[in-house]
Amino acid sequence: MSDKRTELRELGEFGLIEKLTSNFELKNPSSIKGVGDDAAVITMNDTDVQLVSTDTLIEGIHFNLMYMPLKHLGYKAVSVNVSDICAMNGKAEQITVSLAVSNRFPLEALEELYDGIKIACDHFGVDLIGGDTTSSQSGLIITITVLGKTAKENVVYRNGAKEFDLLVVTGDLGAAYMGLQILEREKEVFVANPDIQPDLDGHDYIIQRQLKPEARIDVVKYLKELDVQPTSMIDISDGLASEILHLCNQSNVGCHVYDEKIPIDGQTSIAAIDFNIDPVTCALNGGEDYELLFTIDQNDYEKIKGNPHLTVIGHMTNASDGIYFIDKNGAAVPLKAQGWDHLKD
Amino acid sequence: MSDKRTELRELGEFGLIEKLTSNFELKNPSSIKGVGDDAAVITMNDTDVQLVSTDTLIEGIHFNLMYMPLKHLGYKAVSVNVSDICAMNGKAEQITVSLAVSNRFPLEALEELYDGIKIACDHFGVDLIGGDTTSSQSGLIITITVLGKTAKENVVYRNGAKEFDLLVVTGDLGAAYMGLQILEREKEVFVANPDIQPDLDGHDYIIQRQLKPEARIDVVKYLKELDVQPTSMIDISDGLASEILHLCNQSNVGCHVYDEKIPIDGQTSIAAIDFNIDPVTCALNGGEDYELLFTIDQNDYEKIKGNPHLTVIGHMTNASDGIYFIDKNGAAVPLKAQGWDHLKD
Repeated sequence: MSDKRTELRELGEFGLIEKLTSNFELKNPSSIKGVGDDAAVITMNDTDVQLVSTDTLIEGIHFNLMYMPLKHLGYKAVSVNVSDICAMNGKAEQITVSLAVSNRFPLEALEELYDGIKIACDHFGVDLIGGDTTSSQSGLIITITVLGKTAKENVVYRNGAKEFDLLVVTGDLGAAYMGLQILEREKEVFVANPDIQPDLDGHDYIIQRQLKPEARIDVVKYLKELDVQPTSMIDISDGLASEILHLCNQSNVGCHVYDEKIPIDGQTSIAAIDFNIDPVTCALNGGEDYELLFTIDQNDYEKIKGNPHLTVIGHMTNASDGIYFIDKNGAAVPLKAQGWDHLKD
Repeated sequence: MSDKRTELRELGEFGLIEKLTSNFELKNPSSIKGVGDDAAVITMNDTDVQLVSTDTLIEGIHFNLMYMPLKHLGYKAVSVNVSDICAMNGKAEQITVSLAVSNRFPLEALEELYDGIKIACDHFGVDLIGGDTTSSQSGLIITITVLGKTAKENVVYRNGAKEFDLLVVTGDLGAAYMGLQILEREKEVFVANPDIQPDLDGHDYIIQRQLKPEARIDVVKYLKELDVQPTSMIDISDGLASEILHLCNQSNVGCHVYDEKIPIDGQTSIAAIDFNIDPVTCALNGGEDYELLFTIDQNDYEKIKGNPHLTVIGHMTNASDGIYFIDKNGAAVPLKAQGWDHLKD
């Protein structure tokens, strides 16, 4: 090893993965797509491909057991992985679960966690097929690998968006982030005075969005029923802005995204204002929404028009036109990702 | 959650996994085999099935960076996963790598680790297709999921051994364990006096077995060439005794295994005697050999006779006859697993 020392926080997560994996090549004919999308793609048979993705949740980084019940954590760990398969337009079928746990957890705690995993498996139609359990020196770490499949011609990558395509998002954004702020605030109150009951009234939706995010398996079905094949797709884990930049950069297009179009729930707005945060900032940079962001050909617009799950928030442009956020006054500002990067923060 | 508190160490790893996963069922038609073998089995196409396994290595539990170079660690993490695919009689094709790292590691350290991963990928013919990198609060954790395949009719499970089958092991046993003892001893010497150079002379083979274990992809090829289809198979990660018990229990057979037949390298014996350990105890309970243990029909004996990679160490009996270790005096003692269980130790 050379004596050079480059701090990981200088690179951030995406820069780091890029640096570490850039000299790996795919050599097996069965490996269709490797690192760089929501899931890898592998040959299965004449009609279908397999989708593979993996995600790790670490205590103290991704969750805090002071307000995250273990059952919810189990559910969330499955859901965020299934979401990656949805983002490829596929159906999740199997998961493996690797746990590292310190001895401070009794069996009963892990049973709670697995109850949540089982509820998620049943809900998403996924089979638990393997994994391992090892002891850790501190805390709880869950790594899930999810396997899914889809017809060859239906796979959607991040790099297929074209100029003039419409940019569409599912559900609403920013709620999971505001749910986290509420939970963090009530935790502080509790730490200061354990006799005070947490005040979560009126925040049930945004707290649910934080604790129990739902992978949009329904949207993948709707798109099929509506006969809409997205040209590019990604799931929103780090924040809308970050994901738009991924689609634009990988598809080599620009984008105009409109402030006034971004779907935000009333509870999110109320909580955001209460915290002196612009609700749109939550939507752009909050992360953990696990909604789908995708592009469609303009000719498909009629098929999705009026669908309550889908909102057109912008359109793709020529790459040289740049990537812009159009605010409520019509002013265009370059879109920047300020999403959550745990290696930098 | 009830107030009951059952300590994880009361259960051990296998008991824990059994407890946590016993109420999960396989529902997707593509899921052929779930938890309980070296790898899960999934339908791929008319001729092949896919094999899936996952393994986690944790700093301070599975490795110590004081004597484990990061490049070796990367290699080993891939190798132990590939070994699980070998144990199903398959060929590993893809891996995902999930890393959790604390900020004490610079980029250059992770590059060393990935250099080792790349060398292993090239050696085993495996493609890196995905994974993620997150920050951890302490230490380094590597979870690898490996995907492999084999022809449907060639999959070997742990549960197919029959009475009168021969029990066969590849390579030699106990070396990785003695390599670890040497490394631990020299670490203690170094900690006590950093000016003293580690004395590793004459131990190169057993240290290599600990730091750079080799998944037996060659044996899977030989078996095919020899037209030998094992009736059951497992890889030796926890120790010969533990793995024999797995094969017997899952196949519902008994076993006689012969002390004098167990293959042990000269370096292993010398080191064991130096440490006042019976070399056979290292072989039975040491673990981390990553050799293959399998059973074959007696009619296949002629095909493997004299093969330098394969040693017949016993034969399977009726379940009611029990599982016995026959010592050098011909005395039969019930075989017990004292293998390494990180949840208990």
